[in-house]
Amino acid sequence: MLKWYEEKSLPTDIIISSRVRLARNFSDYPFAAKLSDEKAKDLVREITDKFMGKKANEESEYFCCNLSNLSEVDKNAMVERHIVSPLLADKKQETGLILSDDESVSVMINEEDHLRIQSVTTGMDLEKVLKKANEIDDYITGNSHIAFDEKYGYLTSCPTNVGTGLRASYMCYLPGLSVAGLISSLTEELARYGVAIRGIYGEDSKSIGNLYQLSNEKTLGKTESDILEHLNEIMDQVIRQERKRREYLITNNYNELEEQIYRAYGVLSYTKQITSNECMSLLSDIKFGIDQGFINLNKELNIFKLMMDIQPANLQYKMGKSAGNSLRNRYRAEYMNQCFKNALNG
Amino acid sequence: MLKWYEEKSLPTDIIISSRVRLARNFSDYPFAAKLSDEKAKDLVREITDKFMGKKANEESEYFCCNLSNLSEVDKNAMVERHIVSPLLADKKQETGLILSDDESVSVMINEEDHLRIQSVTTGMDLEKVLKKANEIDDYITGNSHIAFDEKYGYLTSCPTNVGTGLRASYMCYLPGLSVAGLISSLTEELARYGVAIRGIYGEDSKSIGNLYQLSNEKTLGKTESDILEHLNEIMDQVIRQERKRREYLITNNYNELEEQIYRAYGVLSYTKQITSNECMSLLSDIKFGIDQGFINLNKELNIFKLMMDIQPANLQYKMGKSAGNSLRNRYRAEYMNQCFKNALNG
Repeated sequence: MLKWYEEKSLPTDIIISSRVRLARNFSDYPFAAKLSDEKAKDLVREITDKFMGKKANEESEYFCCNLSNLSEVDKNAMVERHIVSPLLADKKQETGLILSDDESVSVMINEEDHLRIQSVTTGMDLEKVLKKANEIDDYITGNSHIAFDEKYGYLTSCPTNVGTGLRASYMCYLPGLSVAGLISSLTEELARYGVAIRGIYGEDSKSIGNLYQLSNEKTLGKTESDILEHLNEIMDQVIRQERKRREYLITNNYNELEEQIYRAYGVLSYTKQITSNECMSLLSDIKFGIDQGFINLNKELNIFKLMMDIQPANLQYKMGKSAGNSLRNRYRAEYMNQCFKNALNG
Repeated sequence: MLKWYEEKSLPTDIIISSRVRLARNFSDYPFAAKLSDEKAKDLVREITDKFMGKKANEESEYFCCNLSNLSEVDKNAMVERHIVSPLLADKKQETGLILSDDESVSVMINEEDHLRIQSVTTGMDLEKVLKKANEIDDYITGNSHIAFDEKYGYLTSCPTNVGTGLRASYMCYLPGLSVAGLISSLTEELARYGVAIRGIYGEDSKSIGNLYQLSNEKTLGKTESDILEHLNEIMDQVIRQERKRREYLITNNYNELEEQIYRAYGVLSYTKQITSNECMSLLSDIKFGIDQGFINLNKELNIFKLMMDIQPANLQYKMGKSAGNSLRNRYRAEYMNQCFKNALNG
């Protein structure tokens, strides 16, 4: 079955994916900070039981597991693919995961809240993923006692999530703004509107591969559709600015860009060893080159998928064996060679 | 007809070519510093007349010309190919050139001395080129009054050339010594033995493409065969050191070298614009890769020939039109793409 990010969908030249997560807690379990190990086990069992045998789609059922049954590589690979959070992967207490085959729906059990329900899709479509997350929410909590306050809304471990418990986010590819050095001023500006920008794959401040996550900071005192509408308005602005920056770059630095893209192509085609950071940066160049028509490949390559594939744990998973850094760098290079060598038209 | 550097010959993994030049002056003409414009014309005419219709080999006659009849691009291209010196190319007075079709024999007329007779061949074979140069010398000066002193030998404009008038030189490819940062200490060491090292294509001190010229400094008080023997002894030492350094590099930095070579290959295959300096450096990486068996090309490429071809004036000559820097960089890139794209076995 294809993963969500392999599905054909809306354009992904700027917004790669749309994601929501809902934070939910049961009133008949203590919140995470006070949850005993035994209750944690009960919680994980209760939720996973609900999904046993449940169809995620026509082809397959949900995958349910206790995270303790997964290997470190599996867990890290899931963190890299944003299926689970680092917090869940590292937690000592019993934790659980519900996952659809295409990885578009996941439920983390006993993370910071009892439930973190996530739904994701390619391109710009928060409405679709919110609808899906709400369906899952209804399925799990329909007959349960939920920690909900008439005045505040959903109650959560951290006050920042009280209210709707909704975090909506776009994963964006922003090479134009990034090359122009505008990400930090944009971050400051959007903070005033309650929207956060974070780099993904890398330190918080600087992103690798020009990938960024934009998400709402506030969940209290707003409806779900307020949150989506507001984030979409902001996102429209960011898209406009990114397009302007790209046009500027292309008009003023065409030859340099072209050279950078073709060299990235040459290196990825023939490298024998490459780190994930450099690989991300070259893949970003290639993505820009494809999206903006600088290069034309004779096969369809999903660059965002490659960006996840070449992360250390995912690569290790692909290799089927544990390997040190330098072996991984060689394997990553081979993989890139296979993808790119002789893939250029013209 | 193939140029001398295109002929199959001895190994050229370290010594690319062997060259001698003989400085000669006529006693019945004033030396260059005092030569009138009229006498300069006479000199050029007298020598070129001798070569009119003379066979350089079975296929072709010598090319004879006054340098003033050549375009700037032609002259600069000849400087880059070491056929003429910058001094000859720039001289305001009448100057002449005799050149064999394969460019292995050239005679500069009215350079620093009346005659500079040059002969060159691939690989390590100074004896062969000295023999050839002496034949040309005999042909030109056999029936002439030559400035020769019983005690000192051949008299020349600059005292450093008095004696045999012979400069013997090897053009060497020394990536091992160069990467190890040993060229300047080697230069100092060899100076004590009367052997000079110069970078070619670049400033005196630093070479581009790891190409160096080793030549004798002294011509006085020695026989021609003394000079050759001494230079060969030194060269054998340098070759030994270079081989040792290459072994060391390959043993200790195999992966880094391999990566550098494959990236050079990738960039040369796909670059859209490249300067001659960077191109030289990448061609040097490729040469090392081929010579040391890191890469295996599916066609025979004479890297040293490419190194000359991509020099600005030679490239312009190839383009058949005058062009600015940036157009040349694009043409150079196209040429490299043609040479290297899809040329890798395995």
